[in-house]
Amino acid sequence: MSKNESRRKSIATIQAAALAAVAPDAAVKRQLYLEGDVLCAGGRSYPLADYDRIFVVGGGKAGAPMAVAVEAVLGERITAGLVNVKHGYTLPATALSRIQIVEAGHPVPDEAGRQGAEHIAQMLTGLTERDLVLVLISGGGSALLTLPSPGISLSDVQTLTGILLRCGATINEINAVRKHISQIKGGQLARLAHPATVVALILSDVVGNPLDVIASGPTVPDPTTFAEAWAVLERYGITDEVPDSITSRLRAGLAGQVPETPKPGDLVFTRVQNVIVGSNEIAAQAVVDEAREQGFSALLLSTFIEGEAREVARVFAGIAKGMAEHGWPLKPPACLVAGGETTVTIRGRGKGGRNQELALAAALAIHGWQNVAVVGLATDGTDGPTDAAGAIAWGDTVTRARELGLDAAAYLANNDAYHFFQALGDLIITGPTNTNVNDLIFVFAFQ
Amino acid sequence: MSKNESRRKSIATIQAAALAAVAPDAAVKRQLYLEGDVLCAGGRSYPLADYDRIFVVGGGKAGAPMAVAVEAVLGERITAGLVNVKHGYTLPATALSRIQIVEAGHPVPDEAGRQGAEHIAQMLTGLTERDLVLVLISGGGSALLTLPSPGISLSDVQTLTGILLRCGATINEINAVRKHISQIKGGQLARLAHPATVVALILSDVVGNPLDVIASGPTVPDPTTFAEAWAVLERYGITDEVPDSITSRLRAGLAGQVPETPKPGDLVFTRVQNVIVGSNEIAAQAVVDEAREQGFSALLLSTFIEGEAREVARVFAGIAKGMAEHGWPLKPPACLVAGGETTVTIRGRGKGGRNQELALAAALAIHGWQNVAVVGLATDGTDGPTDAAGAIAWGDTVTRARELGLDAAAYLANNDAYHFFQALGDLIITGPTNTNVNDLIFVFAFQ
Repeated sequence: MSKNESRRKSIATIQAAALAAVAPDAAVKRQLYLEGDVLCAGGRSYPLADYDRIFVVGGGKAGAPMAVAVEAVLGERITAGLVNVKHGYTLPATALSRIQIVEAGHPVPDEAGRQGAEHIAQMLTGLTERDLVLVLISGGGSALLTLPSPGISLSDVQTLTGILLRCGATINEINAVRKHISQIKGGQLARLAHPATVVALILSDVVGNPLDVIASGPTVPDPTTFAEAWAVLERYGITDEVPDSITSRLRAGLAGQVPETPKPGDLVFTRVQNVIVGSNEIAAQAVVDEAREQGFSALLLSTFIEGEAREVARVFAGIAKGMAEHGWPLKPPACLVAGGETTVTIRGRGKGGRNQELALAAALAIHGWQNVAVVGLATDGTDGPTDAAGAIAWGDTVTRARELGLDAAAYLANNDAYHFFQALGDLIITGPTNTNVNDLIFVFAFQ
Repeated sequence: MSKNESRRKSIATIQAAALAAVAPDAAVKRQLYLEGDVLCAGGRSYPLADYDRIFVVGGGKAGAPMAVAVEAVLGERITAGLVNVKHGYTLPATALSRIQIVEAGHPVPDEAGRQGAEHIAQMLTGLTERDLVLVLISGGGSALLTLPSPGISLSDVQTLTGILLRCGATINEINAVRKHISQIKGGQLARLAHPATVVALILSDVVGNPLDVIASGPTVPDPTTFAEAWAVLERYGITDEVPDSITSRLRAGLAGQVPETPKPGDLVFTRVQNVIVGSNEIAAQAVVDEAREQGFSALLLSTFIEGEAREVARVFAGIAKGMAEHGWPLKPPACLVAGGETTVTIRGRGKGGRNQELALAAALAIHGWQNVAVVGLATDGTDGPTDAAGAIAWGDTVTRARELGLDAAAYLANNDAYHFFQALGDLIITGPTNTNVNDLIFVFAFQ
């Protein structure tokens, strides 16, 4: 096997280990299993004898394979279940016998999703202390579990979101408003299920795994208030712009005529456990473990990486150079891994995604460095609107491209990383992974 | 001492250690000293009995204090010397007795610099194997040692540089052309001094310390050729635009009528030693050492960090969060250091520098994280057109600013980090350090 083949094979194996660690099935079963008649979830024990019924609800793009994993563990013990997933993200009907999958709109919520969420709310109404509810949460869960407060239509919610985005509200501000016009978000699903026991199994797609942000925190105390939600509308001067149904709801909240979202310390959370079953940290740690298996020194730098992809790329290229030249912070053969979510400011008309763009910018920065590589990988297998998960930048990428008549800088300027790496055979193609724990960046210094 | 005071004191001590390690005097004396009658330079021995004369020449902003250090080591044994420094970067005449300091133009070369360089060329003409030449190189050395080939005027060189910058030539392309119209750059100073022994003492201000790039490599083989220099003019279609004196010179080179710059393996380099006396690596290593003294876990990440300051900041903020939350790659109390040179795309009308801008963007990214800090530091003590060396971003910086009525995001949008941190008392003021090994970034996670 040539040096190049061997390097490519190492990268492929490491990448596969990362994705395997956060596959919905593996992620759920690592945290949810039976020991005799005791259900173990997130390190706690739930004797099945304590429960008359078990319900499984949830929403998110990984909902179907997570549901399959739960059925594999609990089978016929499940009373009923319903999970909203994105259109096209379902599985053959034969895969599940107890849990119903509803295909719903994402990122724009639709009536199918609203109805699914309404069924979930009905399923959780009137439960007792002898009921157990498993909540399956994954990326997209916020849109997929949209159930507006009575009197507010889906299109009202849509109008509101558009206005908030246009006026420059931060994601925290948008969420504060949305939680107060919903029947599920901001801990309200936990309140619906109270006094049942609730175990939320969460596949995190948000950097840092803030539980109140992932899927808008349906089982998590909401730190925000009606007063703050209203203040957002006033701050941006949009109280007259948003639909009346929404201002009415918020005014009712301010007047104490409708209940606040449940706050930290609220009794409804007494029997709620939130378990992160898959996260960027778990994928990154799997990279470290597999890289060590492969004989690399390995280090997890951070899972909080954010910033413009092409600039973040230059930092990681700088790390690659330091490893190759000085052995800092690792002596070659070395693999440094980081995770997070970068952004791309689109200026060109090409095809790509943030991970491919990061790899392309890295290729320019490591040009001429023979023993380094930088990899950008979308854990969902779908980087931007492409069928690639990411790409690999090598020290000779720019030279090899030039030999093919491709100008790396011009492709970067046109946000066209996909066609660049496609021509070079350096795209990473995994197919959709049915999971999403954001992105990984691998930096290699070979010997 | 309060927690805050103690943290500030740690940062100040660490920063001072970094600057002390690369102060011209300390940097030169670490690599140049006498052991009896043997001069030790960069780990090699030069018995003084082997030499009849010692000359000291050079150029760069740190030239004056470097010359003082050399006189402190060799004193009366120095035959003569001349070093070009930037206007205003000289020292009182009493500081030096053997080496003449010439104030010259930077970044635009002037006639004083040209004359100084001509004197240096004359001083190095006709030397023998019993002569020793010390060459003092530091940031700005390329402009300060400008001696165009015969027939080319300073203003011709200036015109050329303007054209090359406008047409988008890369720094490597610009250097290839400039080396071929100079009497000093691209190893030609070493050729002038041949067959004397040459020891270049180099304070590096270029990321990665490429010897052929620092001050245009006067004592280093030049990998570029007349053919490549000419190709640059053709690539950008500017052969008709650049002054005739320059095209004539390059055509003469192509025709073999004037000698090429000396290439790798050329005999003129047989007795040449290039010694990096100060560099970003040395400063960064000093940070690691001093941070460990102060009880921090410490790690040198990379000295190759480049990119847009505000985006690089977000990566280092992400590293700070990972250290604070997960103990990756260091458990608190921890100090991670990196070095390099970021850039700022100016869009606003404020006052700042790349290090202050990096700190401001970092402050926004670590907002609310109580136990972290990110520091940007220009080792020359002059970050951008300001009297500050950099600034410190804390987890509460954005909140403290808001209490003063300052909107951090607005100051960043206006590139006005100086006034922001000035109001908060978080500027780092060191005064000019007379050295420059680029920038340092410190990331702290406290306990």
